[in-house]
Amino acid sequence: MGEHERSCETLAGSRRAAGEAGDLFCIVRFKAEREIDLNNREHDLRPGERAVAAPAPTDASLTFVGVIRTPWTDRAQCPRQGSPDGPVCVIEVFPPWVEALDGVDGRERLEVLYWLHESRRDLVAQSPRGGVVRGTFSIRSPVRPNPIGTAIVRLVRLEGAILHVRGLDCLDGTPLLDLKPDRSLFGAPAPDETSSGR
Amino acid sequence: MGEHERSCETLAGSRRAAGEAGDLFCIVRFKAEREIDLNNREHDLRPGERAVAAPAPTDASLTFVGVIRTPWTDRAQCPRQGSPDGPVCVIEVFPPWVEALDGVDGRERLEVLYWLHESRRDLVAQSPRGGVVRGTFSIRSPVRPNPIGTAIVRLVRLEGAILHVRGLDCLDGTPLLDLKPDRSLFGAPAPDETSSGR
Repeated sequence: MGEHERSCETLAGSRRAAGEAGDLFCIVRFKAEREIDLNNREHDLRPGERAVAAPAPTDASLTFVGVIRTPWTDRAQCPRQGSPDGPVCVIEVFPPWVEALDGVDGRERLEVLYWLHESRRDLVAQSPRGGVVRGTFSIRSPVRPNPIGTAIVRLVRLEGAILHVRGLDCLDGTPLLDLKPDRSLFGAPAPDETSSGR
Repeated sequence: MGEHERSCETLAGSRRAAGEAGDLFCIVRFKAEREIDLNNREHDLRPGERAVAAPAPTDASLTFVGVIRTPWTDRAQCPRQGSPDGPVCVIEVFPPWVEALDGVDGRERLEVLYWLHESRRDLVAQSPRGGVVRGTFSIRSPVRPNPIGTAIVRLVRLEGAILHVRGLDCLDGTPLLDLKPDRSLFGAPAPDETSSGR
């Protein structure tokens, strides 16, 4: 875990220096894909939980476009859900995607998508804190077939490749997948905000 | 496109029959990863749009957990944004994930994540319908470094592996990535609904 954060920091730093750095992706990929050690007691099945033989995740692939900095370095510390009044967290966007931030500073609320890099992916029934056992799709636990987290955040300010936001609940070092303007801000979206443009 | 829909229907059908079918993932993967033909005029850059040399998307990988059925078979037909009063669409969940739907029928609103399989991924500045040119992260266009769509839908009913919902705006045959209860339904989430459980 600490390992992973350090590697993300290294990655971010190196990217700032390198501008672009294809082979550094391997570091994060290694961490993201191989770090889950099911022998770690924290991944043990709790009473009533059910794992399945999950197919290999080979249908589509992701690129990490940044890294998220939060005050939480252990999952037990993370808030249950982000709050618009929560602490200011930092989202750092990597090259070559910084130019894609053009216009974001005009947005009050953003939707953030991120990769829940610590999650096992094979549970269909779970009880994250030993509570009621529920189907994975009926709860927002990070343990999912595709561990993608979504949050609505309030943009505090944008400085170059760095966004300061409130409303996150994820671990420090969480890889960033996407940023979008919050859909709830759209009444009748302008044509160039359509979700069916291409 | 029609190609892709048929392959998704075949996939869904075969999975229903087979229960599980690892090698069928290859079909969808082939379609999802290789279908984008940048020589297709519909992918041409419009005035002011900027593409970058995007790194290979090798940081993490996805598994398609179902397929989405909508009335829209061409991107020009898709609504600009889903409406809670929109047509009833169907989400089919594939094995082995059907058991993960346990408890979903108690949810009025769901967050749906899906793979925008027709999108190029290398634009940082774009104008989906020839309007104002904006940074990719400042609009909800399907063209993104990680083309993941999110929608909030109203659950009409759940029948086995099939969900009937209102509020989608995506193409027929869109691959499903995840289903979660809508975060806005959470006041103080119960412990087993935490997003920091593992």
